[in-house]
Amino acid sequence: MTRLPRGFSASGVACGIKRSGLDLALFVSDRPAAAAARFTTNRFRAAPVLVSAAHLLSSRGRTRAVVANSGCANAATGTKGLQAARRTASALARRLGLDEAQVLVASTGVIGAPLPATRLLAALPAAVTGLGAGGLRRAARAIMTTDRRPKIAVSTFAWRGRTATVSGCAKGAGMIHPRMATMLAFLFTDAEVTVPLLRRLLNIVSPATFESISVDGDTSTNDTVLLLANGASGLRVEEGNGSMQRFREALLSVTASLSRQIVRDGEGARKTMLVEVRGAASAGAADRVARAIALSPLVKTALAGGDPNWGRILAAAGTAGVPFDPGRVSISIGGVPVVRRGSAVRSSPRRLRRVFRRREVTARLNLGRGKGIGRILTCDLTSSYIRINASYTS
Amino acid sequence: MTRLPRGFSASGVACGIKRSGLDLALFVSDRPAAAAARFTTNRFRAAPVLVSAAHLLSSRGRTRAVVANSGCANAATGTKGLQAARRTASALARRLGLDEAQVLVASTGVIGAPLPATRLLAALPAAVTGLGAGGLRRAARAIMTTDRRPKIAVSTFAWRGRTATVSGCAKGAGMIHPRMATMLAFLFTDAEVTVPLLRRLLNIVSPATFESISVDGDTSTNDTVLLLANGASGLRVEEGNGSMQRFREALLSVTASLSRQIVRDGEGARKTMLVEVRGAASAGAADRVARAIALSPLVKTALAGGDPNWGRILAAAGTAGVPFDPGRVSISIGGVPVVRRGSAVRSSPRRLRRVFRRREVTARLNLGRGKGIGRILTCDLTSSYIRINASYTS
Repeated sequence: MTRLPRGFSASGVACGIKRSGLDLALFVSDRPAAAAARFTTNRFRAAPVLVSAAHLLSSRGRTRAVVANSGCANAATGTKGLQAARRTASALARRLGLDEAQVLVASTGVIGAPLPATRLLAALPAAVTGLGAGGLRRAARAIMTTDRRPKIAVSTFAWRGRTATVSGCAKGAGMIHPRMATMLAFLFTDAEVTVPLLRRLLNIVSPATFESISVDGDTSTNDTVLLLANGASGLRVEEGNGSMQRFREALLSVTASLSRQIVRDGEGARKTMLVEVRGAASAGAADRVARAIALSPLVKTALAGGDPNWGRILAAAGTAGVPFDPGRVSISIGGVPVVRRGSAVRSSPRRLRRVFRRREVTARLNLGRGKGIGRILTCDLTSSYIRINASYTS
Repeated sequence: MTRLPRGFSASGVACGIKRSGLDLALFVSDRPAAAAARFTTNRFRAAPVLVSAAHLLSSRGRTRAVVANSGCANAATGTKGLQAARRTASALARRLGLDEAQVLVASTGVIGAPLPATRLLAALPAAVTGLGAGGLRRAARAIMTTDRRPKIAVSTFAWRGRTATVSGCAKGAGMIHPRMATMLAFLFTDAEVTVPLLRRLLNIVSPATFESISVDGDTSTNDTVLLLANGASGLRVEEGNGSMQRFREALLSVTASLSRQIVRDGEGARKTMLVEVRGAASAGAADRVARAIALSPLVKTALAGGDPNWGRILAAAGTAGVPFDPGRVSISIGGVPVVRRGSAVRSSPRRLRRVFRRREVTARLNLGRGKGIGRILTCDLTSSYIRINASYTS
């Protein structure tokens, strides 16, 4: 089921920024939708990030349309880049009879190249004509860069006889280490949610899902997560009753699914590893240790080779800048204990090798210090990652 | 010229910890040498690091011998690992008629495996017999793991009619991102230097050289830099006259050469990149930005492919957690400007591609904010790195 929630429509067309394939996605709500967003924390924020943040502010979080292109990030493009992003929003607003600030923009692709705005604007009429409730799949394809697969997730929830849907799409396979945001993710619901509540909920689910994954430790200049709620289902989400809980669960299910899809589709990736750290002094400390492990090229290449070289997990944990007593640390891989109180446990190498050859591996560390828990989902580092990234622009 | 300074001798033998080749190195001074050391800041410090730190303390920095093995890191090995490291030191001390605390130990190799102390002890007599002033090359080979080449550097300096030598060796090709220390490096001089002055000088040159390189961002559990000064040349290095300056320069030349050799021999590496950041608010801030770039898998794969995708350098700089104004940032690659005041500069793609295909590339960033400077030397990330690391223990 890849239909959008009621009142939303989408399309994906080819505008010629990429050499071939769909590269322009459009999402429209038939009524103003409450909007919440999370953007990259990279110091270099791309032009579309700056423009969308400004539009969200001046529209007070009421959005009607999102237009996104792939093939060009429109980042490090100066004043001309900002003009190109603003022209895109205003051209679409004119065509749909909207206020410019009700349109958000997003871009992904090569950094530093100028956005071919003329091509993009020329394709807007076709994108508008193509809008439909079934357009999510084409839109999800139009935002892909090195992604092998489009990423879509849907969840529904009910409250007091009414049913609402949360659905969305995401792109991302490389430059994935979201801090405060991820690559592009567009989420939609026909539930009715106020802007403050929508923001609060996005600020809960995004750190737990999009911001807890890593492919290569690089944070993009264009990371954007948008969540629009247009109320078309008549289901009103309110604090203090079960509707909020149900909406949050549906939202979490969609963002968790999209996050897993991003890591599974990591550039060159064949396997994933969930790193779970417990017993840290705080959640922040657990997160830092989990990130250090998830980022280690040595851990990720061992995962690629199915080589149970857990010493690299231990070494990476020790460099996270988090104080702990090595003598209290335990580590297990896929349920097989490998370190107890800081020392190697004699475990069956065959059993360990079998566990490490699985497509999904879990590494659990207990620092034996406090109650902090952190989880990061990462993928293996393979020769294909090098091949994909050694000649991205040439 | 690979001879050791006067009064030092070395040897390298095969003791059977590695499947084949030399794996046990011995360095001896014929008189007590002032010693200074820098060890890993990894929370998990290997047994030989703990033992050497304790021996340096109880001998008040007077050392006679260093014994180092490759093939096994003796890390995460608990009490038994500590016993094995201590047994190694005491066996050598007995054979050479020394105090146990005058012997330092070092190990490098697989983490978590028990040190085969019996094999190591059985080979000590041959190591002692083999000692010679020309043994540095064999010793340098005996500490290699994935290194393709032994790493040796020599420098001499003169003061008031006397000449002294600084020479040493290092090993390291992967798990290289020294913080406060590097992989194994053993440095020797026949100059006479007090322990406090030796420490102070090592604390100046090590951060500028060994601690300013990165192969893969992973910091070892066994990083150790040792510097021994035995005074056999009769040249006394003192504060407040030119001798200290000359010694520091000779020492810097040796550590800088060994650091370059480590990065050039980085696992799978074919190219190096010097990342130089200027105009930061502080040296620390410049260092953090330079490290973020030097660590980025996307920057390192672009370097491997000779693909001048400088947008990745910009994106990596933006995630260093250092505040700066993107609109004031300039970037040049091999002297070709690519970003001015935060925006792309139109530069000849052909010229840029030529620059990026060189074996040694320099990337210069100016943050336009202050006077802080930072430099990190890194290498490219190639498929060979993956091949080497996907099956290290199996």
